[in-house]
Amino acid sequence: MNQSFRTIFSLNFSTEVKIVNDSDLLYELCQYDDLFVIIDKNVKNIYSSFLSPIINDRIYEFVATETNKNLEELGSILELMRKRNVGRHSTVLGIGGGITTDIAAFAASIYQRGCKLTLIPTTYLAMIDAAIGGKTAVNCAGLKNNVGSFYPAGTVLILTDFLKTLPESEFENGRIEAFKMGLISGTNFLNDLKTEMNLDKILLELIHHKMSICSNDLSDKQERMFLNLGHTFAHVIESISDFEIPHGKAVGIGLRAMALYSKGNGFMTDETYSVIQKLFSEWNIPKSFPYILSEKIKKYAVDILNGDKKINQRLRLVLMQDVGIIKIFETDNYSSVINVLLEFAEKSNHK
Amino acid sequence: MNQSFRTIFSLNFSTEVKIVNDSDLLYELCQYDDLFVIIDKNVKNIYSSFLSPIINDRIYEFVATETNKNLEELGSILELMRKRNVGRHSTVLGIGGGITTDIAAFAASIYQRGCKLTLIPTTYLAMIDAAIGGKTAVNCAGLKNNVGSFYPAGTVLILTDFLKTLPESEFENGRIEAFKMGLISGTNFLNDLKTEMNLDKILLELIHHKMSICSNDLSDKQERMFLNLGHTFAHVIESISDFEIPHGKAVGIGLRAMALYSKGNGFMTDETYSVIQKLFSEWNIPKSFPYILSEKIKKYAVDILNGDKKINQRLRLVLMQDVGIIKIFETDNYSSVINVLLEFAEKSNHK
Repeated sequence: MNQSFRTIFSLNFSTEVKIVNDSDLLYELCQYDDLFVIIDKNVKNIYSSFLSPIINDRIYEFVATETNKNLEELGSILELMRKRNVGRHSTVLGIGGGITTDIAAFAASIYQRGCKLTLIPTTYLAMIDAAIGGKTAVNCAGLKNNVGSFYPAGTVLILTDFLKTLPESEFENGRIEAFKMGLISGTNFLNDLKTEMNLDKILLELIHHKMSICSNDLSDKQERMFLNLGHTFAHVIESISDFEIPHGKAVGIGLRAMALYSKGNGFMTDETYSVIQKLFSEWNIPKSFPYILSEKIKKYAVDILNGDKKINQRLRLVLMQDVGIIKIFETDNYSSVINVLLEFAEKSNHK
Repeated sequence: MNQSFRTIFSLNFSTEVKIVNDSDLLYELCQYDDLFVIIDKNVKNIYSSFLSPIINDRIYEFVATETNKNLEELGSILELMRKRNVGRHSTVLGIGGGITTDIAAFAASIYQRGCKLTLIPTTYLAMIDAAIGGKTAVNCAGLKNNVGSFYPAGTVLILTDFLKTLPESEFENGRIEAFKMGLISGTNFLNDLKTEMNLDKILLELIHHKMSICSNDLSDKQERMFLNLGHTFAHVIESISDFEIPHGKAVGIGLRAMALYSKGNGFMTDETYSVIQKLFSEWNIPKSFPYILSEKIKKYAVDILNGDKKINQRLRLVLMQDVGIIKIFETDNYSSVINVLLEFAEKSNHK
């Protein structure tokens, strides 16, 4: 007997985003007793007063570095959750920047095959990107976000008060991410971002925009891929620098490399390239990475690119024809990608 | 500004189940070059000829024990996948019993947030249960299947030839699982299972039945819970014995304990209880666990029950009113559960 049949399944998620100026909401939230908190250690030191009502043994303090965002740390979180009798109806509360919300959400997504999840991003970048849209991850064997899941949080709480204590460098990361979103979404949106003075309103626009893209394509198969504009280049820079170059700066350089690559491969006209260059200047987008990384890029970039999102062994690059006109391009010519990237090394006396 | 909005997401899956008598299909499948194979070491030793076309370094041999079905082993699989440049469009092929298909499917579900997945269950139990319906898992901190995901395989290939080399004890596990499915689905279905002599036809019925339950409730929130009939008791027995008591036997004893508990709590009449007892005898369902486990149950069962699927700190038991009539019951009376279970210890001279 040879038989076959097909069955369809679906998983549904719903995220409520709340943008609030009043931190009392956090205090209120922390009154709830069936919580397990995963919190950036630095954030905990600043905001420990909020957490006092929670039983102390249900808090996992996470030293939020890219190096710690790994499978071992994930295992420690899951084992502590087990020891503290967290159940699938308990709520995991992830508080911190993108590194923390990524690992917290991943832990929540696989503990008893998924428990309740609330995320409280504390950086501008995490508010508009990492905590929004359901991607969770840890790094694995040197590759960023190589292991993870799609698991939108039930609640994302944007407490704008957190932005008051944020250093300028953190705003920089978010600002470049916002610029990228503008490049994808079109000139009007980009102008709004540039001219709007009310940060809350910008936050709302950016989050709403990303959410609607992700809602149509949670698992990153169609339009959500556009959000990776310039990211193939950026991932190489981040990985090569052992994550010492922050995500925002890497994305900035990656966007410049993307534009040059788009022009070189006939996707972007010289005229448009000039316009984009002007935007890069206006937005003060980072220009270059330290020269010393060039040799490492020549040596290891192929390996990093190999680990990146690929289709049938071909690289998939997100390129641009013009502001708001995004193109997906597949190639197996790794050298062309690496050579364009090397154009963005700082000039050095050693050269 | 206080603002909030809600966004809906969904993930969709589709599984094709193929039941075939011809093992050539496996050989054919293994010609495909973008595979990563996770295979039970024992199975590989028997069927190595099928795997020859695959590049050797894309095979992970898994020593399939409950002890090895853990986060560390999962990490080794993921790291090897990374080293071998597996991409999200590669196919993970899991070949083995339920322990192997569970960990292979879990690895596939989180590697680059999910790659393609084909499962080839090699035991009767895995064919009708573990490989069907999208639950993936590893054990964590002593608790069975405490970490995992919902990730239905794209293809499940049932090669009935595998059953020819299966030892009798493995059939026993599947037979008890089939009995459980019959208790849930009603007297007619149970009778069909008992009288039908064609194993392929039984396989098809059981798989089709489980698939349709899971299709309506992938994430285990409604009718799929019924499949856990007797499992709260069974989990305690398995865990206490360090998984030396196989799943089938534990479920068998668990079903008996479930019936006694259902009667004791007024869900099942004495008359129905007698009818069910007759079924237990007819199907030769295991009666008891070694007396020596009783002390361990008294000592550790609360801890194990605490880790089990709960709602608001209450145990959720799947009980039975009659064949085909299943009830969900919540209680915080752990002792009542443990005392019923202790009734099924073998009588011993030490008593």
